[in-house]
Amino acid sequence: MNNTVLIQSNEMQNAFQQILLKYGFTEKKAEKLAEIFTVNTVEGVYTHGVYRFARFIQYIKDDLVKKEAEPSFISGFGGMEQWNGNLGPGPLNAINATERAIQLSQENGIGCVTLANTNHWMRGGYYGWLAAKKGFAFIGWTNTLGIMPAWKALDSRLGNNPLVIGVPFNDEAIVLDMAFSQFSYGAMELAVMKNEELSVPGGFDKEGQLSKDPAVILESRRPLSIGYWKGAGLSLLLDVLATILSAGLPVAEISKQKGEVSLSQVFICIDLSKLSNYSFIPGILKNIIDDYKQSVPDGSAKIVYPGEGVVQKRKKNLQDGIPVLKEKWEEILKL
Amino acid sequence: MNNTVLIQSNEMQNAFQQILLKYGFTEKKAEKLAEIFTVNTVEGVYTHGVYRFARFIQYIKDDLVKKEAEPSFISGFGGMEQWNGNLGPGPLNAINATERAIQLSQENGIGCVTLANTNHWMRGGYYGWLAAKKGFAFIGWTNTLGIMPAWKALDSRLGNNPLVIGVPFNDEAIVLDMAFSQFSYGAMELAVMKNEELSVPGGFDKEGQLSKDPAVILESRRPLSIGYWKGAGLSLLLDVLATILSAGLPVAEISKQKGEVSLSQVFICIDLSKLSNYSFIPGILKNIIDDYKQSVPDGSAKIVYPGEGVVQKRKKNLQDGIPVLKEKWEEILKL
Repeated sequence: MNNTVLIQSNEMQNAFQQILLKYGFTEKKAEKLAEIFTVNTVEGVYTHGVYRFARFIQYIKDDLVKKEAEPSFISGFGGMEQWNGNLGPGPLNAINATERAIQLSQENGIGCVTLANTNHWMRGGYYGWLAAKKGFAFIGWTNTLGIMPAWKALDSRLGNNPLVIGVPFNDEAIVLDMAFSQFSYGAMELAVMKNEELSVPGGFDKEGQLSKDPAVILESRRPLSIGYWKGAGLSLLLDVLATILSAGLPVAEISKQKGEVSLSQVFICIDLSKLSNYSFIPGILKNIIDDYKQSVPDGSAKIVYPGEGVVQKRKKNLQDGIPVLKEKWEEILKL
Repeated sequence: MNNTVLIQSNEMQNAFQQILLKYGFTEKKAEKLAEIFTVNTVEGVYTHGVYRFARFIQYIKDDLVKKEAEPSFISGFGGMEQWNGNLGPGPLNAINATERAIQLSQENGIGCVTLANTNHWMRGGYYGWLAAKKGFAFIGWTNTLGIMPAWKALDSRLGNNPLVIGVPFNDEAIVLDMAFSQFSYGAMELAVMKNEELSVPGGFDKEGQLSKDPAVILESRRPLSIGYWKGAGLSLLLDVLATILSAGLPVAEISKQKGEVSLSQVFICIDLSKLSNYSFIPGILKNIIDDYKQSVPDGSAKIVYPGEGVVQKRKKNLQDGIPVLKEKWEEILKL
C-alpha cells in the first residue's frame, strides 16, 4: 500500500528510545519501554505498539503517567502480595509484577501479585509471553476505563478488562490475550483508519441495532460485550477481583480520572516445575494442540491456537520490516 | 402450567436422598449429594439440579461414577496441590477440593487445588457460593466433553469448560458461573422441552448459518462459542491449564471415554482476611455494585449482577415450592 512505510524493528526501537530519552526517561527505562512497544508491534499488536506510542508520550507530557515512579510493596502473606504502582509507566510496573509473581510461585507453587494505582500495560500478552517463555503458567488481567455497557444498558460502566493466559509451548508459548468487548476501541479505530468493516457485529448503533460498522459504534459508544450478558458479567467480576485484591480503584473510579490512569491489575504465576507431571507437560500440550489442529475446517479456514499468529507475524515482520501507516510513523518522528 | 408440579425443597431433597441410598451411597454422601442437587434446583439451575439427577443415577448404575471413591493426594508444593478424584462423584470431589483450597489460602494467602480423574461437578456455581459465603474469593473451572467447535471448525473438539468466579457480598455473594458456549446443551434441551426460541443466536445450522432454534443446533452439533473466536480461545486455554495443572485428561481424551467422565478441574481460593484492605472490601463492593446498578437501562430492562438472580430465585422457590416439569419429576420418582 502506498500509505504505508516499512520500518525495521531496530529502527523502530531506536526511534522510540530516543523519544523516551528526550522526554526524560532514564537510559534503562527508555530501553525497556522502547523494546516493549517494538515487540508489541513486531508481534502484530499495532494498536498497543506503534499506534499507541504517541498517546503514551502524551500521558507522560500531561504527567498522567509518572516517568520516575517505581512500584512499592504494600503487604504480603505467603504467595500473595499487594504492590502500589505509584502511577508509574504501566508496562514497567507490569514487568516488575510478573517477575515478582514468578518468584513467589517458585517459593509457594503459586504466586499472585496485584498492582494498585498502575497505568495501562499496553498489550497484556507481553507479560503472558514473558512468564510462559520462562516456563511458568500465567493468568493476569487489568481493569480499564468504563468503555462497555452492562448487558441491556446504554451507558458504559464496565471496562473491557483484558485477560491473559499463557503457558510454555515448545520454545514459544500458547498465549491468549483478549478483552471482553467483541472488538477493542483500538481495533475499531484501526478498522475505520483502514476503511474496513468488522467481521461480526461489534456493537449497537444509536437505534439499538447490532452493527458491523466500526464508525457507527465509535459514535454510539455501545460496543458489544462478548457473548452478550456473559462477557459483561465476566468483565464485572474481573474488575471486582482486581479492585479488592489490589486495594486499588475499580472501573467506576478510574472513569472519573483525567485519563485512563490508576488501574488495578492481577498477575498469577504457577511454577510448572513443582508439579508431579512436569516432565510430561510438553507431550500433553503437543497432544492437545495436535487434536485441536485436526478440527475439520469450515471450507478453507485455518484453525489456529491463541499465540500461533504471533509467532508467524513476528517472523514476517523481523524479516520483511514492519508495515506502518506513513501518517502515523511521521507523527511519531515529530514527537 | 398444567405440565408442572410444585415440589417443596425438603420433599425434593428427601426424594433424592432415598434414591441415592437405594443405589448404595452411604448416609453421609447421600445427604450431601441430595442437598447439592436440591440447592442447585432451588437456586434456579434446574439443568444441573433436578433435570440432571436421573442422568447422575444412570452414571452410578453404569459404574461411570464410582460411588465409593474418595479423592486422594498426589503431590503438593506450598499453596499448590494436585489431587486424584479417582472417578468419584464430581460434586463431592469438588467440595473437598474447594475446602482444601480454602485451607491452603489460609496458610499461603492463595491456594490452588487441582483434581484429575474427577467427574461432572454439576453446577460450578455451588463451589463459588460455598467459598464466597465463607469469606474467600474463588476462581474455578472444569473441562468437559468436546461439545463445541474451534472457531471456523465443524466438529466439536473444545469443551464448554465452565468458569466460576465468586466473592463474598453482604451475607450473600457475587458469583459468575458461565460456560463458553453461548448456551449449554442443557439450556438448549430445556428450551426445546419448553418449545422456546433462544434469545440470541446460539449456534450454526447444518448450512453454516447462525440460528436461534435450539433444536436445529442440537441437530447440527455446532453451538456457538461466546464472542466467536474469543470464547473458543479461552475455552482451549482453560482446558490446557486444567490438564497440565491437574495431571489429568484434556478434552480430547475425555471425548474418547464411555461417558463424560475423568474430568480435570482447578480450584483457586484467596484468603481476603490476609489482605491489607480487608476491612474496606464490603464498602468497595457496595460502591462497585451501586455504580453498576446506576447503568441507564435500554427501555425497561433490569440491570442485574451475576448471582443476583440466584438470591431472588432461591427466595421464591423456598417460599412457593419449586416448579418442576411433571414428566421429569415422575421419571425421578421411578428411579
